[in-house]
Amino acid sequence: MAASDTYTIGIDFGTESGRAVVIRTRDGQALAEAVTPYAHGVMDTRLPGGTPLGREWALQHPQDYLDVLQQAVPQALAASRVHPDQVVGVGIDFTACTVLPTTASGIPLCLLPEYAGRPHAWVKLWKHHAAQPQADRINALAEERGEPWLARYGGRISSEWLFAKALQILEEDPGTYAATERFIEAADWVVWQLTGVETRGACTAGYKAMVQGGVHPDDDFFGALHPDFRDVVDTRLGRQLAPLGARAGSLSAQAARWTGLNPGTAVAVANVDAHVTAPAAGVTGPGQLVAIMGTSTCHVLIGQTLAEVPGMCGVVDGGIVPGAYGYEAGQSGVGDIFAWLVRHLVPPAFHEQAAREGLSLHALLEREAARQAPGEHGLLALDWWNGNRSVLVDASLSGVVVGLTLATRAPDLYRALIEATAYGTRVIIENFEASGVPVEELVIAGGLKKNRMLMQIYADVTGRPLSVLDAEQGPALGSAMHAAVAAGVYPDIAAAARQMGRVVRHAYTPDPQARATYEQLYAEYLTLHDYFGRGLNDVMKRLKTLAAGVPAPTRTEVPA
Amino acid sequence: MAASDTYTIGIDFGTESGRAVVIRTRDGQALAEAVTPYAHGVMDTRLPGGTPLGREWALQHPQDYLDVLQQAVPQALAASRVHPDQVVGVGIDFTACTVLPTTASGIPLCLLPEYAGRPHAWVKLWKHHAAQPQADRINALAEERGEPWLARYGGRISSEWLFAKALQILEEDPGTYAATERFIEAADWVVWQLTGVETRGACTAGYKAMVQGGVHPDDDFFGALHPDFRDVVDTRLGRQLAPLGARAGSLSAQAARWTGLNPGTAVAVANVDAHVTAPAAGVTGPGQLVAIMGTSTCHVLIGQTLAEVPGMCGVVDGGIVPGAYGYEAGQSGVGDIFAWLVRHLVPPAFHEQAAREGLSLHALLEREAARQAPGEHGLLALDWWNGNRSVLVDASLSGVVVGLTLATRAPDLYRALIEATAYGTRVIIENFEASGVPVEELVIAGGLKKNRMLMQIYADVTGRPLSVLDAEQGPALGSAMHAAVAAGVYPDIAAAARQMGRVVRHAYTPDPQARATYEQLYAEYLTLHDYFGRGLNDVMKRLKTLAAGVPAPTRTEVPA
Repeated sequence: MAASDTYTIGIDFGTESGRAVVIRTRDGQALAEAVTPYAHGVMDTRLPGGTPLGREWALQHPQDYLDVLQQAVPQALAASRVHPDQVVGVGIDFTACTVLPTTASGIPLCLLPEYAGRPHAWVKLWKHHAAQPQADRINALAEERGEPWLARYGGRISSEWLFAKALQILEEDPGTYAATERFIEAADWVVWQLTGVETRGACTAGYKAMVQGGVHPDDDFFGALHPDFRDVVDTRLGRQLAPLGARAGSLSAQAARWTGLNPGTAVAVANVDAHVTAPAAGVTGPGQLVAIMGTSTCHVLIGQTLAEVPGMCGVVDGGIVPGAYGYEAGQSGVGDIFAWLVRHLVPPAFHEQAAREGLSLHALLEREAARQAPGEHGLLALDWWNGNRSVLVDASLSGVVVGLTLATRAPDLYRALIEATAYGTRVIIENFEASGVPVEELVIAGGLKKNRMLMQIYADVTGRPLSVLDAEQGPALGSAMHAAVAAGVYPDIAAAARQMGRVVRHAYTPDPQARATYEQLYAEYLTLHDYFGRGLNDVMKRLKTLAAGVPAPTRTEVPA
Repeated sequence: MAASDTYTIGIDFGTESGRAVVIRTRDGQALAEAVTPYAHGVMDTRLPGGTPLGREWALQHPQDYLDVLQQAVPQALAASRVHPDQVVGVGIDFTACTVLPTTASGIPLCLLPEYAGRPHAWVKLWKHHAAQPQADRINALAEERGEPWLARYGGRISSEWLFAKALQILEEDPGTYAATERFIEAADWVVWQLTGVETRGACTAGYKAMVQGGVHPDDDFFGALHPDFRDVVDTRLGRQLAPLGARAGSLSAQAARWTGLNPGTAVAVANVDAHVTAPAAGVTGPGQLVAIMGTSTCHVLIGQTLAEVPGMCGVVDGGIVPGAYGYEAGQSGVGDIFAWLVRHLVPPAFHEQAAREGLSLHALLEREAARQAPGEHGLLALDWWNGNRSVLVDASLSGVVVGLTLATRAPDLYRALIEATAYGTRVIIENFEASGVPVEELVIAGGLKKNRMLMQIYADVTGRPLSVLDAEQGPALGSAMHAAVAAGVYPDIAAAARQMGRVVRHAYTPDPQARATYEQLYAEYLTLHDYFGRGLNDVMKRLKTLAAGVPAPTRTEVPA
């Protein structure tokens, strides 16, 4: 540790916990990290006071975020043995769209006694899906009016996004809406708590609040949704946005006490966790699709030009790095499909074998499946266990397996499911390329990068080399890089990424023989993808409707 | 036990064992039974002398059948305490087409030392599938020549049938073929052993040797397959056939010693095991589809008129009862699909729960699945794990599941697979009806009749009442009824069935609400059935081709 070295702290706010990592600005090396689990976790059945929540609700407690600042940050700092004088900046990233209503001074309504018992006063987590009716109406109206921004979001906005959630408050709890003076992304709210100044980042605003070319949808549009919604931007959001890489402000005296850092330390504009992973892997230019692969996969991609890509999640000017278009796409079920198989459809013999060998079930299934040649299991699956986010944008789709025989075994299914998600990624890649956004290479981040068979299958199926993020905590690293830019250590995020980005280039390359087989299988996948996904046979929707119409849930009582 | 009562013995030759049952002719009551497992079982890897067998071979040892006569019959007789004087007849049924080459006097070639080492000298069991190339050529030639009998077998004959197996001998082992003086169904061979007289039954000849209207395909046809095959009927089969219900002959002195019965006891013409189950359940007329449900399902149905039903297994005049048309159809995988799920895709929690409650896994899954309403699991499956026997007649088809989500559990799949086989049965029913053969009721026999949820689902899906065979050993009961007719106790099988047939009429009736839901689901099934099964998307065939092209089998080594 050189005395001249400087450090930044990246803080990654996830779904269940927040994590602080101390990073050396010279080379992106992580020195120490600490995690603070959210005391209230995801609240999806009742409020802390006991008020029950409806179906599809998912809330959080803002104090949990402050706990991260007061616990994880000083713990990581202490463990790193870095002196606060050497810490030049702080950056954060967050799940999104995670939003909350506050007073004009930033006090969450849910912390005021008169609102604490009202569900709409709390933080709506990204996966709060109860605003679907509002999202449906936003989409219908936008289509009817020919709103130009709609195509930038693949033709459909999500119920997870900001205006759907805000409109739900207005319609279901007008009193809380009336008391809301600011409605803000949790990412920006944390920056506000750190600096004392409200600052809204261009990234979340672009991807989650439909800001295009610096402007929101116009007031007429909001007025047509609900008369009292017309002025939502002016009265509750504001129109000023800060670009990524900018300095949001300086650490306040109070925040300095919380974190153990010096007052005045630079605080960067907040990021979305997926998007900030791109610079962490050294990606600040076009051609490299960054896939953050965990329970689901988020794809981010930089393009030089603006293209309207059907079924993507969004394109935002400056959404990943300033001065270029940031594209986002996603697969709504990936690791959680494999986990579903492992948890619910693997017989005791494999459990016993795994125990004998001291392996995880995943590792055993991976090993067994890796012995097979492509095509050997005779299976083909559609990876829609959790619906399809890109490019079909349809939550009512479901999973399919074709080719089952009496010889089919759990490792066959394990491999087929991995392949299915790889085909899904390839559909996204080809969709980008068909729209004029090139994808030459995949850069993989997220927990699944450790599964070597999966990585090789992705290389073989996509026909592209795979580079792999070489850091345990990608988002925190990316946030620390933004902090370094905000502190002036680097002139811009590209320069920071060159020094601090960590990636193993071309860790996996396509095998020509496997690739040839996967070409055939991918063609089969595409046929089924279009058959079930593009209206040729809407059986999946009808099955879901039928299942939803069943009087009462009578699920199995076996603790499986 | 009245002194005036008479008895017959039904002997059912299965795949792994033979079973003798002593039956009272007055009412069909079973008094006692005994089973003799085949000492050599199914020989599918090597001959008793060690000669290795090829892929898809399945042979048996004829001595195993004689063991049944010498062990099971006297054991059952002793256990019944019936005096041989009161036993008026013996009837047998057999798996088919199970055939063997013999000398003119009926000695199996495989029992002659000079042929014992030649695989083609042994009994070819029904599931010997190595004659597929011969079956393919028979089908192609029949289609080319416009053979009128082809339509009576749904347009395609099976590799399991007699001429495919005979042609395989000729082509692969001409020496054994040359030495074959008689080529005979094992069913008829056993009758020969009992009576000393070669007698060929109309049932097996009709379903397995393409006899229609009393005549075989003509010699030109056989000659076009192979010059030396032209005279196969005259030189190795003979053209005389005995109708069902007829007396084949009388028990010889030797057979009387084997069985402990009186010489001169009537011996009935042999039956196929599935077909003889119809009279056992009291069915000797039209409108009742008898489904023998086990690992696979065989459907037999009597019709007043001759119809050519696409994709059925066969229609034979007098094939089930004399004077009417006997129709056969089948589903190639039923119970074995459920067993596959239970064995290979049920996680430990269910195993533990079943153990705690002292239930079988099947019983636990049935109970859990029975709690659901139709449609609740959101799944739809095609039941082609083992290909499709009727009405698509395509072994290269495979299983499909649509509607999978992260909430899908093993009982959901268990129910969906049962429903899929019920839809498959309904396709067969509707196919018969569309061809002018009415089906008003289902009569269920076989091991699956004990699964109450399955039975109710079949009633709901088919919209027809289900009657259930009320006997443990249906085929043996049917054989005993034929013995009673042969012995003159009854004038014909219909009269015998009225007295001896055992059935619980309308044990299950359709539930109107469930039926309405299943109407919708069946429509979905039909759409996928045609999409995957009728050439709209031949992905299943291509997946199998791809899987077959894989260099070497590298299946999992986990003992699952």
